[in-house]
Amino acid sequence: MPKQLFHHFNKYLELTEEHFQEILPFFEIRILKKKEVLMEAGNMCTHNHFVLEGCLHMFFLNDKGTERTVQFAIENWWITDDLAYLNQTTTDFSIQAVENTRLLTITHDKQGQLLKEFPQLEKYFRTIYQISYGAALVKMRYLFGLTKEEIYFHFTEQFPLFAQRVPQYLIASFLGLTPEYVSEIRAKKRS
Amino acid sequence: MPKQLFHHFNKYLELTEEHFQEILPFFEIRILKKKEVLMEAGNMCTHNHFVLEGCLHMFFLNDKGTERTVQFAIENWWITDDLAYLNQTTTDFSIQAVENTRLLTITHDKQGQLLKEFPQLEKYFRTIYQISYGAALVKMRYLFGLTKEEIYFHFTEQFPLFAQRVPQYLIASFLGLTPEYVSEIRAKKRS
Repeated sequence: MPKQLFHHFNKYLELTEEHFQEILPFFEIRILKKKEVLMEAGNMCTHNHFVLEGCLHMFFLNDKGTERTVQFAIENWWITDDLAYLNQTTTDFSIQAVENTRLLTITHDKQGQLLKEFPQLEKYFRTIYQISYGAALVKMRYLFGLTKEEIYFHFTEQFPLFAQRVPQYLIASFLGLTPEYVSEIRAKKRS
Repeated sequence: MPKQLFHHFNKYLELTEEHFQEILPFFEIRILKKKEVLMEAGNMCTHNHFVLEGCLHMFFLNDKGTERTVQFAIENWWITDDLAYLNQTTTDFSIQAVENTRLLTITHDKQGQLLKEFPQLEKYFRTIYQISYGAALVKMRYLFGLTKEEIYFHFTEQFPLFAQRVPQYLIASFLGLTPEYVSEIRAKKRS
């Protein structure tokens, strides 16, 4: 199963099987049950996670105690609070499993050591972050440029499998909508 | 002046003066007058830009023809439509000078060649993008977690010099507010 990470590395660089066998021990496998919490707001952000199987979301609680999701991670995605991870500070976000999930997880120290020993991986992480940041700009365009209804239907049309897989209230939370609003526009579309 | 980029590289890696002299010819200096357009929606996104002096913003036009800003760049920041740049496609965004601006600009092809010849720069760009993506998650937290009034005052308190420097209507546009709303809450605070 960890071979998935090998294939993902090789999407962006050429890595030998032998090197991957040396890289793998930097990681630990972690298994989470649905709803299990991986990272909790207020704690130090010490780990970065690569999803082998399953789905996670990162969220914060607003003043009313409502969860607002800022990112998801499914198979082959990385997830952490990147700024807190980079600066080794406490995080304001929590990460929780949306489904039963298997991860490869790495500590900040070990990732630093890994990048020193295998500097060719810098290209891989540069590309991953470049894509993530580019996608965040596009998300901003939708949030600022579309009506709430358009945001929802645009998202579900662009990512149909994802929209089927993840509970509606989490998609609503990710798009800055209320679950009630999403039920309403879905009912309107069906009628 | 281009030495600024040398110092910025050296924030995240160790680069010799000699290497920097070999790196510099990959870039061109570009000078823009205030309001001049650097990239236009609908065109191919072929360049990445490092700001030596001045300020730019990247925006799109919504259905009503109103500009909505998704990112700014001041001294030592990079700016482009990262997803379109990476994939070498057309962009939906435009970039315009907010002030008279001096840039170091590089084409996608030349940046690819630069990273091949100086792979140690991958670490620099990985860190830049990791910070940018981390900051985008934090921005999402403010957009989803604060009231419109809190978003504005939080931003101006956190980045006071930036808030003084950039016209209020652009800050409003960046925070998803209308200029009228910003005038209103500023007047309320003064009264």
